[in-house]
Amino acid sequence: MPLDLAAVRAAHARIRPHIRRTPVLTNAALDAAAGGALFFKCENFQETGAFKARGATNAVFSLTAAEAARGVATHSSGNHAAALARAARLRGIPAYIVMPSNSAQTKIRNVEAWGGRITLCAPTQQAREETCARVVAETGAAMIHPFTDERVMAGQGTAVLELLEELPDLDVILCPVGGGGLLAGTAIAAKALRPAIQVIAVEPAAAGDAARSFQAGHIIPLDHAATIADGLRTTVGVPNFAVMQRLVDGVITVSEESIVTAMRQLWDTLKIVVEPSGAVPYAAVLAGKLPLPGQRVGLILTGGNVDLDALPWIRR
Amino acid sequence: MPLDLAAVRAAHARIRPHIRRTPVLTNAALDAAAGGALFFKCENFQETGAFKARGATNAVFSLTAAEAARGVATHSSGNHAAALARAARLRGIPAYIVMPSNSAQTKIRNVEAWGGRITLCAPTQQAREETCARVVAETGAAMIHPFTDERVMAGQGTAVLELLEELPDLDVILCPVGGGGLLAGTAIAAKALRPAIQVIAVEPAAAGDAARSFQAGHIIPLDHAATIADGLRTTVGVPNFAVMQRLVDGVITVSEESIVTAMRQLWDTLKIVVEPSGAVPYAAVLAGKLPLPGQRVGLILTGGNVDLDALPWIRR
Repeated sequence: MPLDLAAVRAAHARIRPHIRRTPVLTNAALDAAAGGALFFKCENFQETGAFKARGATNAVFSLTAAEAARGVATHSSGNHAAALARAARLRGIPAYIVMPSNSAQTKIRNVEAWGGRITLCAPTQQAREETCARVVAETGAAMIHPFTDERVMAGQGTAVLELLEELPDLDVILCPVGGGGLLAGTAIAAKALRPAIQVIAVEPAAAGDAARSFQAGHIIPLDHAATIADGLRTTVGVPNFAVMQRLVDGVITVSEESIVTAMRQLWDTLKIVVEPSGAVPYAAVLAGKLPLPGQRVGLILTGGNVDLDALPWIRR
Repeated sequence: MPLDLAAVRAAHARIRPHIRRTPVLTNAALDAAAGGALFFKCENFQETGAFKARGATNAVFSLTAAEAARGVATHSSGNHAAALARAARLRGIPAYIVMPSNSAQTKIRNVEAWGGRITLCAPTQQAREETCARVVAETGAAMIHPFTDERVMAGQGTAVLELLEELPDLDVILCPVGGGGLLAGTAIAAKALRPAIQVIAVEPAAAGDAARSFQAGHIIPLDHAATIADGLRTTVGVPNFAVMQRLVDGVITVSEESIVTAMRQLWDTLKIVVEPSGAVPYAAVLAGKLPLPGQRVGLILTGGNVDLDALPWIRR
């Protein structure tokens, strides 16, 4: 099945019983400060606290009974892990999860709560992939990659599908980019539904591989990602980059300071808990990195899984 | 106009253009832990971050043009103050606000942002009332008491009106009580709409005047209120107590520790920012102070105005 709007629609039909249709929040004060109209798609309210429930659920429920019987496996810093564990539990199959040892405590607990079987590994891309390959070899589980899997990408695209159903006249979508699963699904759905829309990727400058790769025309891997936005510490995937080159209009990078300021301002004003990765699109607005006047801008608030004991604006 | 369901309905019609219809959140994990079905009415998403926008807006828009021309005045630890300042600005009249000097910074800033003219006073009930009386004498402003004003009580009752429109079959309403403005409006609306419903007031044991007064049959004033729930540090008002005696089914007190635990759990699970006063009803559930099995329980999350630099679970 090609990765297109039809695939995103099929994913939505498949996962709808298992996920939340998340609300879209607006705020007059934030609009006035930005000089545009901002629409926050609240995936922090999604099951497991992040949009990742969409892609993982689509992947798990796309498996044949024979495939599903041996379970699923993945590596993830947390949100995809919890989402896959939950989807597997809903289908009644095991989930084998490889997590870097520096994952946030709240994310590890989240996976455990859904019954995921966790293997910790060193916090490098290579260790994640090797450990996961070993787990797959041992169990026969179906590998569900957190962002290069097409079923995952199609599932992630369902967030913007809902957003554009409610607000068909948006001018811009701001979407965080880490591995590029959400970005690919978003770009495919948004551009098919509304060709004139601008899809802008946003990432931390401290994990700025997507911006560098986009400019260079080929992937320049991240060797080091010292960003607070723990969901965005990965290099963009190969199929994700291909979609990005074809459909994404630009990549903006934001500072660590602006991410923390954005996160705090969203908590203070919208009264919602957003994780650093989720605040990245709003950081681009705050930093004045967009020609916003009068534009209608959709921002995907990707998740809300934060360690409440370690908030970045509080020095201990 | 008597304070009855019709007054609450009239208030709703009057304020609807100026306030938000707030969402009702649910969560399967919280339901499972509680052994009942919990429905959180999210007044933390209300304009100015608290239900107080309802009562204040009703009072301001109930004034005649001649009354309104001289402005409005009140004393408040914060949420009513911001709500009154906003309502006054919407009507284009001045708001004179007396605030105790120990009010949370975030609440003082909120009032300033809405153009309220602030006079600080000592943090005692007597100082508040005396200072406010002086301001009223000087300006001729209409006094809008934060909880004994009938227009305020009717306005506060609109939250449960919306809740019961969506969920007409609730068994119990859990409502925080400080001065009793929300509680009076809630009890009047809820009991008229659904006589069989239980309306239970919840307050911090450290500001336990309502429970003691309810048991004694007369108001026993609070001489000291060392609770983190800054919105509930007031003694219940005389008309509020009269409504309470007539319509409220019980008063539950909760510990400071349970308030902090409840607040944190709501942040972690619902991904929303709730202030300590707003977490008080859920603290009663957490502490197992209710015979919940199978019940459908509405909880009014009264506000979300928190100083994000001073979270109670973080020792600095």
